[in-house]
Amino acid sequence: MLVNFSGRAHNHNFATDFIVRSLLDTDWYKLAMLQFIWRHFRDVKVRFSLINRTRSVKLARIIDEAELRRQLDNVRSLRLKRSEAVWLQGNTFYGQRGIFRPEFVAWLADDFALPDYRLSEEDGQWRLDFEGSWAMTTMWEIYALSVINELKTRAALASMTETELDILYARAKVRLWDKIERLRPLHDLSLSDFGTRRRHSFLWQEYVVETMAAELGPRFIGTSNTHLAMKHDLEAIGTNAHELPTTVAALARTDGELRVAQYDVLRLWQETYGGSMLVFLPDTFGSTQFLRDAPDWVADWTGMRVDSKQPVAAGEEYIAWLERHGRDPREKRVLFSDGLDVEDIVTLHQTFGGRIRDGYGWGTLLTSDFRNCHPRNGQGLDPLSLVCKVTAVEVDGAWKGAVKLSDNYEKATGPASEVARYRAIFGTEGVANVPVLV
Amino acid sequence: MLVNFSGRAHNHNFATDFIVRSLLDTDWYKLAMLQFIWRHFRDVKVRFSLINRTRSVKLARIIDEAELRRQLDNVRSLRLKRSEAVWLQGNTFYGQRGIFRPEFVAWLADDFALPDYRLSEEDGQWRLDFEGSWAMTTMWEIYALSVINELKTRAALASMTETELDILYARAKVRLWDKIERLRPLHDLSLSDFGTRRRHSFLWQEYVVETMAAELGPRFIGTSNTHLAMKHDLEAIGTNAHELPTTVAALARTDGELRVAQYDVLRLWQETYGGSMLVFLPDTFGSTQFLRDAPDWVADWTGMRVDSKQPVAAGEEYIAWLERHGRDPREKRVLFSDGLDVEDIVTLHQTFGGRIRDGYGWGTLLTSDFRNCHPRNGQGLDPLSLVCKVTAVEVDGAWKGAVKLSDNYEKATGPASEVARYRAIFGTEGVANVPVLV
Repeated sequence: MLVNFSGRAHNHNFATDFIVRSLLDTDWYKLAMLQFIWRHFRDVKVRFSLINRTRSVKLARIIDEAELRRQLDNVRSLRLKRSEAVWLQGNTFYGQRGIFRPEFVAWLADDFALPDYRLSEEDGQWRLDFEGSWAMTTMWEIYALSVINELKTRAALASMTETELDILYARAKVRLWDKIERLRPLHDLSLSDFGTRRRHSFLWQEYVVETMAAELGPRFIGTSNTHLAMKHDLEAIGTNAHELPTTVAALARTDGELRVAQYDVLRLWQETYGGSMLVFLPDTFGSTQFLRDAPDWVADWTGMRVDSKQPVAAGEEYIAWLERHGRDPREKRVLFSDGLDVEDIVTLHQTFGGRIRDGYGWGTLLTSDFRNCHPRNGQGLDPLSLVCKVTAVEVDGAWKGAVKLSDNYEKATGPASEVARYRAIFGTEGVANVPVLV
Repeated sequence: MLVNFSGRAHNHNFATDFIVRSLLDTDWYKLAMLQFIWRHFRDVKVRFSLINRTRSVKLARIIDEAELRRQLDNVRSLRLKRSEAVWLQGNTFYGQRGIFRPEFVAWLADDFALPDYRLSEEDGQWRLDFEGSWAMTTMWEIYALSVINELKTRAALASMTETELDILYARAKVRLWDKIERLRPLHDLSLSDFGTRRRHSFLWQEYVVETMAAELGPRFIGTSNTHLAMKHDLEAIGTNAHELPTTVAALARTDGELRVAQYDVLRLWQETYGGSMLVFLPDTFGSTQFLRDAPDWVADWTGMRVDSKQPVAAGEEYIAWLERHGRDPREKRVLFSDGLDVEDIVTLHQTFGGRIRDGYGWGTLLTSDFRNCHPRNGQGLDPLSLVCKVTAVEVDGAWKGAVKLSDNYEKATGPASEVARYRAIFGTEGVANVPVLV
């Protein structure tokens, strides 16, 4: 019998396994946004906060404080590796070389440091806040989410026997394979992994990404995970997120400035980047008002990402809007990214394929779909609706609540009075009430 | 990263992996029968032949001759290990110590040697025969079957990628677990592994047996595989097989001797063994005639094994026969062992539980159920109906065809003229025509 002594011994050390081992183990769009923030807003002070929308799961009773601190402290100790800096500068992203400027990469390697975190328990939940300059603080989002999610996974795995673990992963693999088989016939599919923040574990995400890449060929266009993209020679995929309009809107001093903040962000973004990176996310304050009031140049952008609106409605709304603006939808891209599962992808592709370039950013239900895989029907591996959002912005030395309205009332965040003020300005046209699952 | 260098290198040597590595890697009843044969019939000459009832699968096109010879030669080179000899003598089987006599174990360790094999190709099938003294030749049956089955498995695996192999085993594990979940609620179940001869591979059988033992607790009473029983401290399970009445009947010189041969075997068996080992297999020449003509003392035996008759009919026939003979069925055991799958077990247990002690010897569909597990819908891992039977017995220096009639016309074996003679003597009452799947 061949015994892997070091492997076996290492398994006993599992508790000290670090979850995040590279600063690049984050969504690529965080790096694109980081350079944007670093160039235009580096001194803005913000607060990011962890929000568990699945209130029934009491994370503070599941995840040990000492272990959580050890993992977060480890993240703070990470520095950009030389090979990573070289890759960021030398690699092409969306076909462009030099997306990341040498000065930015040098800053990231030499000066970047995550601010400290603030951790306390509240009503069975971990209250976790990060405060500091936007350029330093923003990066906490993905690290914090993948740490919490993987610690929750480890807690669930800890009560399982070796056989149960074996069956758990066998079931999850069979499910993944069934999904792949369902997607294989869609020859012109354009799918990418967006599952870093909600992943079951780093190793599982890596397994899923490698399997999808091997089995789906060109239908699988890449991963949002920068580390995995570098490690496995995949395309790094990403656009931009709500934190840009949310933060810039909070900086607005008048209702007039607030109204145009979402377009100011786009104008700055296209000064910073071009081409395929010009994909807007319209739903921060409601997609319908965004499209209705958008300046005509927004219709020149490459595409739109759908995140909180019912996806068929959102796609149709975008197509109609493009046609009203005299643009050909077949030359534009719509990227669906909200809680997709395989049947959603198949249906949306049937609905939009050929009419517009449809793409899919597959997150939670790609990298964390262990529903009903537990051999004793445990729920501990079901995905959470866990987010880490910018919740406050410092304006004139005082904290001001940051607001996201979204296309779904359930996804709105911010202090009630500010939400009301924003709703008065942006309206509620096209906003719906849909339960948030993941 | 921790690399298991020796394990990785060993994987490249897979082609020279030996399938059978212990003389005890066989059904325990072969050893019980071997001692019986050694005591009473050691000089009888027999021929065993491989018969692939799944004619559509051309084994000679799948399995390489050189590799088959290497595996069979390896089996011939095996000798009983000292630890195995000690265990055979010192262990209790069915609660009895000393089932194997010291002289027998000494003979097995010192004098036992498998005769050479005869291998040729015929119509895309491997023709494989073994000839010699019954005591030496009988042991080839299980080794030959597990070698052929595992080489067929390896041939199918050879065309698969690492991902496909991963999915294949994940699916098979999920199926095994589903079967376990289906059986778990049957608290008074009495199930054992009978799957050595048809196993997918040695390692898979070992995985299945360990998982069943861990998960089903006392519902899983043991395995027919002697090596696994010794290695994992499980009960070795087994009764006796058709080869006893088949061979003894072939030795009969008159129709009168032929008619009683099946009971002569039982009389000798109970002189040799007692207690729980007194389970008869009635279907060699048809179960209905066996029970009809059986002497009353046969009803004192502990139980009956059902192998080729529709199992509900066979169980009911046994119960009615016991009642006619004034025996209480609730004190007797019926052991079902013919091509069972999990739903058969559940149904039979519902039908017979409480009325008689029902037991299940689960073979092919426990250790080789990879149907529809192949990721590209390949059929190469579907189980075969492959047997290795005594086909001829030397009588007065001439070979005489051995006959099995069974309760299913499709399972009858032997030269047509001899089959006709046996049918004239034993009749066909209660014999049916059912397709043989495994």
